Amino acid sequence: HNGSVFHPGTIVFPAALATAQAIGASGRDLLVAAVAGYEVGIRVGEFLGRSHYKIFHTTGTAGTLAAAAAVGHLLKLNPSQMLHAFGSAGTQSAGLWEFLRDAADSKQLHTAHAASTGLMSAYLAKSGFTGAEHILEGKQGLAAGMSSDSDPSKLIDRLGTRWTIAETSFKYHASCRHTHPAADALLQVMLKQDLKPSDIAKVETLVHQGAIDVLGPVTDPTTVHQSKFSMGTVLAIVAHYQFAGLQEFDQHFHDQDICSFRDRVTMVLDPEVDSAYPQSWIGKVKVYLNNGEVLEGRVDEPKGDPGNTLSRTEITDKAMRLAAFSGGASPSEMSAAIER
Amino acid sequence: HNGSVFHPGTIVFPAALATAQAIGASGRDLLVAAVAGYEVGIRVGEFLGRSHYKIFHTTGTAGTLAAAAAVGHLLKLNPSQMLHAFGSAGTQSAGLWEFLRDAADSKQLHTAHAASTGLMSAYLAKSGFTGAEHILEGKQGLAAGMSSDSDPSKLIDRLGTRWTIAETSFKYHASCRHTHPAADALLQVMLKQDLKPSDIAKVETLVHQGAIDVLGPVTDPTTVHQSKFSMGTVLAIVAHYQFAGLQEFDQHFHDQDICSFRDRVTMVLDPEVDSAYPQSWIGKVKVYLNNGEVLEGRVDEPKGDPGNTLSRTEITDKAMRLAAFSGGASPSEMSAAIER
Repeated sequence: HNGSVFHPGTIVFPAALATAQAIGASGRDLLVAAVAGYEVGIRVGEFLGRSHYKIFHTTGTAGTLAAAAAVGHLLKLNPSQMLHAFGSAGTQSAGLWEFLRDAADSKQLHTAHAASTGLMSAYLAKSGFTGAEHILEGKQGLAAGMSSDSDPSKLIDRLGTRWTIAETSFKYHASCRHTHPAADALLQVMLKQDLKPSDIAKVETLVHQGAIDVLGPVTDPTTVHQSKFSMGTVLAIVAHYQFAGLQEFDQHFHDQDICSFRDRVTMVLDPEVDSAYPQSWIGKVKVYLNNGEVLEGRVDEPKGDPGNTLSRTEITDKAMRLAAFSGGASPSEMSAAIER
Repeated sequence: HNGSVFHPGTIVFPAALATAQAIGASGRDLLVAAVAGYEVGIRVGEFLGRSHYKIFHTTGTAGTLAAAAAVGHLLKLNPSQMLHAFGSAGTQSAGLWEFLRDAADSKQLHTAHAASTGLMSAYLAKSGFTGAEHILEGKQGLAAGMSSDSDPSKLIDRLGTRWTIAETSFKYHASCRHTHPAADALLQVMLKQDLKPSDIAKVETLVHQGAIDVLGPVTDPTTVHQSKFSMGTVLAIVAHYQFAGLQEFDQHFHDQDICSFRDRVTMVLDPEVDSAYPQSWIGKVKVYLNNGEVLEGRVDEPKGDPGNTLSRTEITDKAMRLAAFSGGASPSEMSAAIER
């Protein structure tokens, strides 16, 4: 979700699915629980603001409350119990970006931690365990400790008429979302001018500060996962394969031509892009050709954003690819599930 | 532990005992693991500093690393694995003081969370799971996110010659440690002058800022647990019973004479006490008598501090009382365990 820079699905669905399975909830209840989890997590992420995201992985921090909301809905918590669940969840909120510098495994730990502590907080509240009533905005609460630009109005912005789940994006490329706007802008230039990677001398991406904070530490990625946080690698793969999917990263992230292209990509802070962020994720690139020409590319909504969403076929293809990649389900099992 | 404002025992022993039991470690290894856990947690707490403790419950945050160190020692992690365990532990560090305002149950949640996430981090590292290498002092690490006065020199202060476990205090009263210096100072005045509670018009406690931050929100405690964070209640119980133990709180925290005394106790920031803190926890009180006299009390080391430690008999008595209170072990079982 753009405005909150928060990945709701990876937190809400594991917690909600596990609970729904455990208590035998209906599919309808599961979906409502997911909507509640998205609403809470996204609003908390927006509330915590950009200063928070500079140091903290919002998916890990806001995620505890998202999971608590989803599970709390399934457990039919009353409002007072739900408040206590939020208190217990928020006081366990954690997740620092420091791991990016070393390509460490913490991103998955953050999501697992958020899902499990949020789930536990809801169960605890159901059993009468209490939490702080003002965990978000209290004097010694989340915002006091982890944000310098928190905005409580975000928590209730058009509550009940605005549905944040409808604002979420589908990822097209299998990389950090901060790389997508520039990747799409580069692709636009290359397709329009029918360029080959070898035509390109260098690419300057014009980005928001958040992209520099998160992607900046990754200069020489040594693992597949880290390469998804390397602006240069993502643009190199897109330039060579028109798409940066799981297979492309696995097979090519360390190829010589990919690394060589990667090292010719830079990031520069752009005032327009930065001030539009995080509501809009504008992609701007300057492409310097070997023949001396300089081309500019721009996309206002990267592929997968609500205004430029994936088609039904693209989403189905993605689901099939993911299942095949992880061996999670056979193509026929997937087709059957999708048809249902 | 005074300098770090960190309760090592409540984190280190549950995690270390569980692991030692699970793998059949020797008593000797368990003790060495506990020493390692104390060293790491205390040094991390000192590193994070006073600004951290204003918002965060250091026992919850530094505690994840303390548990990881203790469990990591038992699992015989090599230095690289231990570093990864610290990375995973630190990126899960959490715990906000906000719960104090509502007398919520989060204090126990923080300690359980720290013990369990630290333990898990050590096991994860043993299995090859990686964490940030500079989780403490990195640009997007713990100190960057949760402290404005962190001091890396604290992490290695006389490492190998200074043993922080020898600096820890035993609690004498069953209340928040921030109440002990003033409680002892009041007791000193009352014993010296042979005063009864009814002789006292009001008590002014001269305290450090941390006491005001943590105890300030608690003005009208509604639960036994919250009353242990009420300076007024603790002083009232000490004035009436010369000792504030588990029984005294349970039976008397809401008695009319206790509440009435409580409301005549105030806290005032004292420059001398504040600048000595947290290395020294000085207790100063002004006792205003009904006859117009004003008496001053002062203790430089509250009872239980290393320089004013509990006697063997006092520690044994405390262990017996705790076991009896919780029904954890019979007096004869306790005696046998203590004799061994």
